Amino acid sequence: MGIIKLKSRVGIRCVSSVCGKKEHDGPLGALFTEFCEDDTFGMETFERAEAEMMRRCFAQALEKGRLGVSDIDAVFAGDLMDQCTASSYGLLQYDIPYFGLFGACSTMAEALTLSALTVDGGYFRRAAAASCSHNATAERQFRSPVEYGGQRTPTAQWTVTGAGCAVIERGDLPVFITEVLPGISVDRGVTDAANMGAAMAPAAADTLVRYFRQSDTPPDGFDVILTGDLGEEGHSLARELAALEGLELGENFLDCGMLIYSKDQDVHSGGSGCGCSALGLAAYLFERFMKREIKSALLIGTGALMSPMALAQGRSIPGIAHLLRLDRDPLV
Amino acid sequence: MGIIKLKSRVGIRCVSSVCGKKEHDGPLGALFTEFCEDDTFGMETFERAEAEMMRRCFAQALEKGRLGVSDIDAVFAGDLMDQCTASSYGLLQYDIPYFGLFGACSTMAEALTLSALTVDGGYFRRAAAASCSHNATAERQFRSPVEYGGQRTPTAQWTVTGAGCAVIERGDLPVFITEVLPGISVDRGVTDAANMGAAMAPAAADTLVRYFRQSDTPPDGFDVILTGDLGEEGHSLARELAALEGLELGENFLDCGMLIYSKDQDVHSGGSGCGCSALGLAAYLFERFMKREIKSALLIGTGALMSPMALAQGRSIPGIAHLLRLDRDPLV
Repeated sequence: MGIIKLKSRVGIRCVSSVCGKKEHDGPLGALFTEFCEDDTFGMETFERAEAEMMRRCFAQALEKGRLGVSDIDAVFAGDLMDQCTASSYGLLQYDIPYFGLFGACSTMAEALTLSALTVDGGYFRRAAAASCSHNATAERQFRSPVEYGGQRTPTAQWTVTGAGCAVIERGDLPVFITEVLPGISVDRGVTDAANMGAAMAPAAADTLVRYFRQSDTPPDGFDVILTGDLGEEGHSLARELAALEGLELGENFLDCGMLIYSKDQDVHSGGSGCGCSALGLAAYLFERFMKREIKSALLIGTGALMSPMALAQGRSIPGIAHLLRLDRDPLV
Repeated sequence: MGIIKLKSRVGIRCVSSVCGKKEHDGPLGALFTEFCEDDTFGMETFERAEAEMMRRCFAQALEKGRLGVSDIDAVFAGDLMDQCTASSYGLLQYDIPYFGLFGACSTMAEALTLSALTVDGGYFRRAAAASCSHNATAERQFRSPVEYGGQRTPTAQWTVTGAGCAVIERGDLPVFITEVLPGISVDRGVTDAANMGAAMAPAAADTLVRYFRQSDTPPDGFDVILTGDLGEEGHSLARELAALEGLELGENFLDCGMLIYSKDQDVHSGGSGCGCSALGLAAYLFERFMKREIKSALLIGTGALMSPMALAQGRSIPGIAHLLRLDRDPLV
């Protein structure tokens, strides 16, 4: 299966991002649409907080796009929580056709891909792609409650508290989605839930190698090649794995998980979670396009398709990576 | 957002179904592709059994379609397990672009919808839509382990042990997907996890009412109008709710959850789960098209977008229903 070239001028009308305090304190802090000082978003449980964060993010996307609910024909959304309830409850008040996704931390890229294909195909006038994660809900579900204060290993990543939303349509847009390459699951036997970067790196390398074997544009033809949430460990592994396949990734090869926190924020290997690439798209990539600092970029959403139950039963962790090419100038 | 009419002759090339003993003992038993006598599929845990059932189902779909792995450009799949691991592990060996979905028990219809749109749009030559559920994994996760032997209430449904897969392509096909109407989440305040039919019925009625307000074909113009897994309770509620909106559904209004077990199998309100509509499509609807008993049908996948955590935190249960129109003769 090759690169899919979009047929029309389909792209991103607007983005929104809502995050927690730690993300707001990080290097991209000033660029998020909204943040919450105590990560609760006024709710009594963190699960409700995550859903409320998603709701606010979607509301912000409508406002930034000067759009009403009836202007959006479909929502593609998902998150990390069991049965993806942050998205289903967070977006429940909006009477819009809803496609629930589970791509783990690759969900934002999966949602963008399906939004782009269905809008490009003329089935929807406009689609919204949204994803979120919350540190407290993810830690409780995948590892242990934050109150437990467990020691974190050096390869551990910090699940981002954040939600991102992008509105996809056709027309004269600030950023075009010009190509997509959907991910294939890759499992190289990693079983360490505190090293998700290593589990996802082979999938990122696989997708990037498949892309550049077919693309006319070499890696240095892109201003940014941005993975979702590999973190330092996974990012360096992905670079090595790509090099073994003859693909040399240069200084433009970056990772949302390495951009979102500063070194002194003590997050070890970097940020992770569905919200990581969602915030990275909204507050970093889209912003740089808007400031006309970059012309062409790749976004590679990376996800680990595991569960605590699967790990307890001796399974290793499959990764997946969905790729989108973004351009300031349309290719069609 | 209105009915989406597919532009080309897109439809179902072949289907496959794999199920457990209870489903094989039911009225549709002889029509399933494969079944397992003890529901373990040779695995040591029920979670692995569910993944293996999904794997076998996909392998059967390839065989029935006389297709190789490289003939399928994309898989749309999901299930009920936390982080949808039955699908991600079950389909891991197949190197095919993978889109993970979470639509709860509506997942088969969601997967069919996205397969139909992306194949119709020309992005994929061929896509596979697959979904599964397993009684033992669902009971443990959503209620209590089956060994506990908890008393079931009259409105309770029996989660189907089954996987279904359909291969979608363009051409001269036995069944065409001619229209789709994606679902909108509906929450009417039901909080009883032992009455999922009541939680999903408003969504089914909402989608059906929206469909028939726009369609030129009246309800009796279809040979079968088949919901996914409302069960007896939900099905009668959906009929009542539709009637309140002026939509009279006749004797052709059926539910997969009421077809899959016989009265003497003691399943109370009927079957449920992602596998319910997947088996219903494969072993009932597709079979009847193949036997030329029916010309036109609606399939309405119904899902409850809740989690045990959400219910514990006082949330009610949102439902969603995705509709597809299937025709023996192409409309384009």
